[in-house]
Amino acid sequence: MSASPSASPSVPIKGSRFVIIGGASLVGSATAELLLDEGAGEVVVLDNFFQGSTENIKHLAGDARLRTVQGDVLRLPQLIEATRGIDGVLHLAAVMSLTMDRDPWMGLDVNVRGTQNVIEACCINGVRKLVFASSNAVYGYGPGVSGDLVEATPFHSAGAPPAAILYGASKIIGEQLCRDAHAKRGLDYVIVRYSTVYGERQHYRAANALYIIETYDRVRQGQRPRVIGDGSETKHFVHVSDAARANAAAFASGATNVAVNISGPRPVTTLELVRLVTELAGKDLAPEHVDPDPGKVRLTSGGPWALDHRAAERTIGWRPQVEMREGIKRLIAWRQATEK
Amino acid sequence: MSASPSASPSVPIKGSRFVIIGGASLVGSATAELLLDEGAGEVVVLDNFFQGSTENIKHLAGDARLRTVQGDVLRLPQLIEATRGIDGVLHLAAVMSLTMDRDPWMGLDVNVRGTQNVIEACCINGVRKLVFASSNAVYGYGPGVSGDLVEATPFHSAGAPPAAILYGASKIIGEQLCRDAHAKRGLDYVIVRYSTVYGERQHYRAANALYIIETYDRVRQGQRPRVIGDGSETKHFVHVSDAARANAAAFASGATNVAVNISGPRPVTTLELVRLVTELAGKDLAPEHVDPDPGKVRLTSGGPWALDHRAAERTIGWRPQVEMREGIKRLIAWRQATEK
Repeated sequence: MSASPSASPSVPIKGSRFVIIGGASLVGSATAELLLDEGAGEVVVLDNFFQGSTENIKHLAGDARLRTVQGDVLRLPQLIEATRGIDGVLHLAAVMSLTMDRDPWMGLDVNVRGTQNVIEACCINGVRKLVFASSNAVYGYGPGVSGDLVEATPFHSAGAPPAAILYGASKIIGEQLCRDAHAKRGLDYVIVRYSTVYGERQHYRAANALYIIETYDRVRQGQRPRVIGDGSETKHFVHVSDAARANAAAFASGATNVAVNISGPRPVTTLELVRLVTELAGKDLAPEHVDPDPGKVRLTSGGPWALDHRAAERTIGWRPQVEMREGIKRLIAWRQATEK
Repeated sequence: MSASPSASPSVPIKGSRFVIIGGASLVGSATAELLLDEGAGEVVVLDNFFQGSTENIKHLAGDARLRTVQGDVLRLPQLIEATRGIDGVLHLAAVMSLTMDRDPWMGLDVNVRGTQNVIEACCINGVRKLVFASSNAVYGYGPGVSGDLVEATPFHSAGAPPAAILYGASKIIGEQLCRDAHAKRGLDYVIVRYSTVYGERQHYRAANALYIIETYDRVRQGQRPRVIGDGSETKHFVHVSDAARANAAAFASGATNVAVNISGPRPVTTLELVRLVTELAGKDLAPEHVDPDPGKVRLTSGGPWALDHRAAERTIGWRPQVEMREGIKRLIAWRQATEK
């Protein structure tokens, strides 16, 4: 199907064909499942399996509408091939701060060149809508970050680790490449700026998501959970099922040329979070307050903050459903089921 | 000479060997001249001559210490070859907003991959200091930009054109790659965040610098100068000789791992600027107020602002010397001398 100025920027899920780039991931696998549940005609999971895992999508393997393609965002011809005849592309492939710290050269290739390639493939094939996974990292880190972060909040970087700033700036670039392609080539797109995603099939690569999984790993071994500093620092998570619903809503809505924040019902302090994980793991262990590890990328803020998601409700008709207590219950249940 | 933790991050100009990458440019040619005047042992001007011009450096051609190399920041081996045995590298090669708008793919290659390559070459060859040309673009554009912009001011982008944001974000990435290389590989560096550079050998590629040269081009033909809107918008320029002095000061000072703003004595409104250029061109023509050209990248702000350069005085011992009246006189004298 080829884009035309009169075409609606809505891609209904039912019957449509989707490619999820970076699909064998936390968010990708949940979105693939949701799109199939909602009647998608085809879901192609494209991944280079560098970070993604076949394990993440094996529960979907029985569905004839699911296709897996080993491909890499750095190889434009593979993307052009995979997006031919496709209605909607979800672009999730990216490295995050911890990987960016280990190898900024590769990280910028994946996040900048990779996004250029995805957009190019979408434009060449007249894909009807691109949903680009951005991040609250576009608002930055450090003392400047506090209060309600809305879509027009600037990017704060003073005092933040280089890798975190590189990650945020690479997402800003990806977003602007979408805007540029919309203006010059008519590409319809929605940018979803996720806060920290957590949930079933959780990985160990996000500096923030580790607060949950590392705490669980410690307390289930009977070790006291650790809190950095006094634990008053704010984190704002979003459950993976809410992120998947946001992606589907971004496709189905008539919205285009817009960026919206996607976050859970409310933020949490690291102390509350650690206590909640400890409680839900069935343990009675008091948190231990520790100093930050200077060798580790750490994402800080200047005070209490929240990623304001009200624009997403107005624009794509989405709001979060999963409270952290419920989300952590599900994550722990998944871990317990997969550990045996 | 190989870098070691005990080596001073000062590179005295006298007797030292320099490479200026993007050297056949406005800032590059002025800096080459200054370094030669101050007794540099060698100055290598490396340029691909895509934007730079041999015209810009022909006045230096008689000096045996000057060497010109045709090279490209996208070709790492050329940079490794050119920086062997070099004490100081000044990295100026970049595309600005207007070129970024025409070809964002190429623009990101030059500004991101190009800077990765320059840093890699410096680290491989143990270059003693890198001076990286950044920009007040790291503070962004649009309604959020007003007041004194200091080194910790965040990046504002709401409402700005994609190409301007891409340019600013690419400079943020370049800066963070310097910080990362300092932390992991001991590279000493100073980032100089220039405001809009103007002066002799002025080109037509900067969205802001055009206010001077386009006004001059109109009034010398007897046409009324044009001001967009009411002309109250702030611009902050720095004369090319002051930018060149800042580069030399960045090398010679003991500063490292730091970014400083480099701007002229004070900002100006576009109306004041247009009147000044008209007066100094010897014309008596009243400005004509026009609407912005919607097809052109335009850089706006939210109110009066200034690029605060006081940190540069504390850090590298530099302050601007050339007032706009003097700088525009010099620019016009150069234009008149080259036009006949």
